[in-house]
Amino acid sequence: MRAEVVAIGTELLLGDIANTNAQTIGRELARIGVDCFVHTAVGDNVDRIAEALRAALERADAIVVTGGLGPTQDDVTRAAIATLVGKPLIRDDTLVDEIRARFARARREMPASNLRQAERPEGSVSLPNPVGTAPGVLVEHDGKVIYAVPGVPSEMERMLHAEVLPDLARRSGEAASIVSRVIRVSGMAESAVGETLEPTWSALAPGDVTMAFLAGGGEVRVRLTAKAPSEAAANERLDQVEAEVRAALGPAVVGVGDETIELIVSRLLDERGWTLACAESVTGGLIAARVTELPGASTMFRGCIVSYATDAKSSVLGVDDSLIEEHGVVSGPVARAMAAGAREALDADIGIATTGVAGPTELDGRPVGTVVLAVSGPMGEFDREVHLPGDRSTIRRIASGAALNLCRLYLLEALDG
Amino acid sequence: MRAEVVAIGTELLLGDIANTNAQTIGRELARIGVDCFVHTAVGDNVDRIAEALRAALERADAIVVTGGLGPTQDDVTRAAIATLVGKPLIRDDTLVDEIRARFARARREMPASNLRQAERPEGSVSLPNPVGTAPGVLVEHDGKVIYAVPGVPSEMERMLHAEVLPDLARRSGEAASIVSRVIRVSGMAESAVGETLEPTWSALAPGDVTMAFLAGGGEVRVRLTAKAPSEAAANERLDQVEAEVRAALGPAVVGVGDETIELIVSRLLDERGWTLACAESVTGGLIAARVTELPGASTMFRGCIVSYATDAKSSVLGVDDSLIEEHGVVSGPVARAMAAGAREALDADIGIATTGVAGPTELDGRPVGTVVLAVSGPMGEFDREVHLPGDRSTIRRIASGAALNLCRLYLLEALDG
Repeated sequence: MRAEVVAIGTELLLGDIANTNAQTIGRELARIGVDCFVHTAVGDNVDRIAEALRAALERADAIVVTGGLGPTQDDVTRAAIATLVGKPLIRDDTLVDEIRARFARARREMPASNLRQAERPEGSVSLPNPVGTAPGVLVEHDGKVIYAVPGVPSEMERMLHAEVLPDLARRSGEAASIVSRVIRVSGMAESAVGETLEPTWSALAPGDVTMAFLAGGGEVRVRLTAKAPSEAAANERLDQVEAEVRAALGPAVVGVGDETIELIVSRLLDERGWTLACAESVTGGLIAARVTELPGASTMFRGCIVSYATDAKSSVLGVDDSLIEEHGVVSGPVARAMAAGAREALDADIGIATTGVAGPTELDGRPVGTVVLAVSGPMGEFDREVHLPGDRSTIRRIASGAALNLCRLYLLEALDG
Repeated sequence: MRAEVVAIGTELLLGDIANTNAQTIGRELARIGVDCFVHTAVGDNVDRIAEALRAALERADAIVVTGGLGPTQDDVTRAAIATLVGKPLIRDDTLVDEIRARFARARREMPASNLRQAERPEGSVSLPNPVGTAPGVLVEHDGKVIYAVPGVPSEMERMLHAEVLPDLARRSGEAASIVSRVIRVSGMAESAVGETLEPTWSALAPGDVTMAFLAGGGEVRVRLTAKAPSEAAANERLDQVEAEVRAALGPAVVGVGDETIELIVSRLLDERGWTLACAESVTGGLIAARVTELPGASTMFRGCIVSYATDAKSSVLGVDDSLIEEHGVVSGPVARAMAAGAREALDADIGIATTGVAGPTELDGRPVGTVVLAVSGPMGEFDREVHLPGDRSTIRRIASGAALNLCRLYLLEALDG
């Protein structure tokens, strides 16, 4: 069974809002094992909606249309479906009564335009909308099916779950489930991840698990997708491929799904009963902001000193001025002294630090993108110099993740040198 | 001139991410007056991408394709375009050299798979990508044009503005311009902004400037959109309506467009030659991260102390323990002492501070959402208690903006009490 999503609304084309309805519907179709190869968005224009539906119906067995069911003149989805299937719009008296009753219950007068919402193509079925005024429509045509659901996300979601997905599952008769799993990788380029996993990837038969790579924010996400008769069977196959990926990539694998680097660091600290403090220069508070986003961060996070001004590195963190003079502010010795200083000032077991050049101009003769990270703790001190691509914002974001990753590897005792 | 957007990526179809690239591109096409009637999303499949492009090219004069330009096996946009236009993929030696140089600068070895990114259809033009490894591609075909840009949003946006939009504007030669302007408002609810602006709004004739309200992240954005024969004429009309909005809302207006609260605060500080420091508890580094995102922040930003652990408030910020005992850690006196402590420890003219409860559980008997903000400087000390809605992340984000807004009003001498 193959379905498509068609989202209606000029506001989508103009970029006023993101097409989150297509995202939700796509995720739910995958969950029940219905393939979906195309999403389309078109504006509030009856001919273009009809044309988009016609094209989708050529490729797919089912269409979920969202939006354009409201009471105003620009809501033309009902008319477009009627055009497509060659049937007139009729007024459904039961729907008229329901809409009237809804307004009566709300003690509001019903604007005449709301009667538009009682119209549907002849031969169609009305789908109830208990949380809004726009009923949905189900139309069968040439052995295929069109579901029209509202564009308001809460109304759409309710109708999707209560009406559309059960009906689709019945029609598809397929007992298949598509499950995805994302493996987060840090400290490797996307291309290096791809090459390392090439043997795993190329051994997967067509129809088996698929593997896709997505880079951004200083990490690479490897998405595995399995299609199987049941969710349990899909997860079992994903477990096997995940194990192969972990074996190939080693400690570069941070975690799966929502397991961010900061979450893993916080777990590793909790396991040891240790606390964390940081000293941030180039990242300017980003590491602290990421760590404190975790609920319950206060059990392991002591605090952070953002020593943005160079003299604050000595006055607040106790970094020796001679170190700065000798090595420059963007250097391993200064980064290590910052990490040790944060640990000391904030009474923590582990200190991490960043110093570097986010741009737009170079600093101390070091080019934009140069960042030195350090970690200090019971197992000694380590620093790493990295050269990051991108603009100021990207460099800062990637540097914050790299510092947390250095801390993660330190706690795993996977660092040397 | 008519354009379409085609977004590539199975992760879009599966609902792993929202199609925000289509949103951005749609908005920018509208801004330069190019019509866009369809957005399409397809997965990482060379035949389906080629088919989506072929269909779009039948309807439109130009296509912006985003995604599928990475170095891994699942990145097949280049191949799909080559299929569509019936040209072979060639390897561009100049691109090979550039990609090699980029890896050399980053002192990293170039995986061989990155050479895929040096391929482009014969007869095409390469579009530079200064912030990533994936170059874009411009292909002319049958008097129409296809632009392929990366899927990573920051790389996509940069290439869109630097390459695609100027080229499209040249080709379209149309004399209509749609210009939008966003006015940022802080410290007022969306409904209050709407009601205050009702006289302005209802006086706008059809076809004149449109006004829309968007709330989120602790601010309200009022978007004005004008369509006029020229950008200058549209901007002139926007200037008039903006003046009316500013007159109605007074100091609640922070700025327009990219003028964030932190940018306005930094300008106000620069005008006076003053510096800033902060002490963050509930916001955990978010204020510092926002301020240091500004290029050149080092001229006015001294640093920040994230005193997450309660005892760090006394040990690093010098907050008197008796104040905490008497008033509780989430209180005006403690917030003011934190602001003064940051000012002192980091040798700054102005100190701002936050203390509060982001959840998930209450603290010291204060409910989730309670936040106290303070500012300390040459004109005395002020604090404000606010009660914020939403989850942990929302509370922290809104609190960071509210603290910066308190600082803005302080510098404007618009605070009393």
